[in-house]
Amino acid sequence: MIKISIIGAGNVGINLFETLRKKKEVKIVSLFNRSLEKILSYKDKIFITNNIDEIKKSDIYIISTNDESIEKISNDLRGRDGMVVHTSGSTEMKILSIHKNFGVLYPLQTLTKDKLFDFKKIPICVEGNNDINDKKLEKLVKIIGSKYYQLDSEQRLALHVSAVFACNFTNYLFSVAYDICTENKMPFEILFPLIRETLEKIEINKPSKIQTGPAIRKDINTIKKHLNFIKSKNSKKIYSILTDGIIEKNGK
Amino acid sequence: MIKISIIGAGNVGINLFETLRKKKEVKIVSLFNRSLEKILSYKDKIFITNNIDEIKKSDIYIISTNDESIEKISNDLRGRDGMVVHTSGSTEMKILSIHKNFGVLYPLQTLTKDKLFDFKKIPICVEGNNDINDKKLEKLVKIIGSKYYQLDSEQRLALHVSAVFACNFTNYLFSVAYDICTENKMPFEILFPLIRETLEKIEINKPSKIQTGPAIRKDINTIKKHLNFIKSKNSKKIYSILTDGIIEKNGK
Repeated sequence: MIKISIIGAGNVGINLFETLRKKKEVKIVSLFNRSLEKILSYKDKIFITNNIDEIKKSDIYIISTNDESIEKISNDLRGRDGMVVHTSGSTEMKILSIHKNFGVLYPLQTLTKDKLFDFKKIPICVEGNNDINDKKLEKLVKIIGSKYYQLDSEQRLALHVSAVFACNFTNYLFSVAYDICTENKMPFEILFPLIRETLEKIEINKPSKIQTGPAIRKDINTIKKHLNFIKSKNSKKIYSILTDGIIEKNGK
Repeated sequence: MIKISIIGAGNVGINLFETLRKKKEVKIVSLFNRSLEKILSYKDKIFITNNIDEIKKSDIYIISTNDESIEKISNDLRGRDGMVVHTSGSTEMKILSIHKNFGVLYPLQTLTKDKLFDFKKIPICVEGNNDINDKKLEKLVKIIGSKYYQLDSEQRLALHVSAVFACNFTNYLFSVAYDICTENKMPFEILFPLIRETLEKIEINKPSKIQTGPAIRKDINTIKKHLNFIKSKNSKKIYSILTDGIIEKNGK
C-alpha cells in the first residue's frame, strides 16, 4: 500500500486525488491546500489541511501547486523521509534536490473545467533522481493507468515547448480562422472536415511531408491576394511569418 | 440527365470525374487535359481530348485546372451555351463573366495522393451568376453527395484564408513540434492525445474561449524559459508573434 499526500488542490491535484483514491494499491493520507475552503467538500473522504506540518507521513508527496510555489513547499517538507515529486512541465527536477528521494510526475494534459481527466488517454512523463525512484514512479503511473514515458528535465521542457506549438498555438490559429469565418458570415464548422483530415494525416505521416497550401506551392499570387484580404495587422504578420517559415523549411 | 465536361484532370478534376460517372443523374461527355498522356488510361470509360474545340456540347463545363489557366480556358469556351464553372477557392466568379451562365463549385478539401475524396465529408461552396444557376449548382452538389454552402466570391476568399490558418499553418506548427520532439529523442505521438483533445474542444467551443498555455496565463517566466530553449531563429520568431497575438487578443 503506497501512502500518498497531495499538496495543491488545483486541476492536476484534484484529478490525481479522484483517480488515486479509487485504487486499492494506494492510500491517500492527506490533501493539502493553502485555502482550506476550496477543499472543505472533501473532508469526509480524506484528511484535509492547510498546514504543511500536519501533512501525514507518506511514501510519496506530490506537489501539484503552481510552478512558483514548488520550491517553497519543497523547503517546507525538508527532513521528510518519503519521495517528493512535482507535476510541472517546465520546472527542473533539481529544484527538489534538498531531499534524498525526489522526482517529477508530469501529466501532459490540457485543462477542461468540471470534467475529470481520463488518465488512460494522458501520457505521464516521469523522472526520478535514481533508478529506484524511477521504478517507483513507473509503478505509480501504471496504477494511475496512463501511458508512461521516461524523460529527463531537458526533454520535458522540450515537450512542453512542442505542446505549446502543437496545441496552444494551433488553437490560437483556429481562433483567427473562427474570427475570419464569423466576420464573413460563414459557420466555422465548414472547416471541420479539413481540420479533422489534417489531424488524421499527421497521425500517420511526418507533418512536413503532407504540407499543402499556397506557401509550399510558392503560389505568390494567392499569397498576395490573401495578405491583401486580411485586415488585422497581427494576423497579417502571422500569415507572413508562417508563410516564410513554410517556404524556408521546404526550400532547402 | 445532366451532361458534364470536365476540363483539367488534376486532383479535383479526377475526383469529380470518378464520383460523377457513377451517378445516374449525370453523364460525363468529355474529359479534357492539356497532356493527353495523363488521361489515356480513361479512354475506355469516357471521351478524352486535349483539344478544347473537341469538347462535347454540355450542360455544365467544369474548369478544374490550376488557377492561372482558368481565364484562358474560359475564353476558349466562348460562345458555348451551357454553364461554365471553375473550382478555385481564391479566384473570383466574375473571371467567367464572358459567358451567359457561369458559377463556382469549390470543394473545400486537402490533397491526399492516390486516395479518392469522400465527397460526403467535403463541403462544397457554390456561387452562380443568377438564381437559376444557383439552383442548378445546388442540385449538382446534392448529386455529388457533399454538404452545400452558398458563398459569394469574397466569402470564398475569406474561407480560403481561414483554411490556410486552420489547416496549412497548424500543420506547419505540427511540423515544428515534430522537429523539437525528434531533436530531443521523443516520439511525436506523445502529443497526439493533447492534439486530439484540442480538436474535440473546438468542435463544441469557440476556440478563443478554450485557449490555454503560458501566453494566456501571461506566465512570463515560462515564456522566457521556452524562448531561451528554442534554437531555430524562425521558430523563436513564430513563438514570440503567436504569444503576442494570444496576449493581445485576450488582454482586451
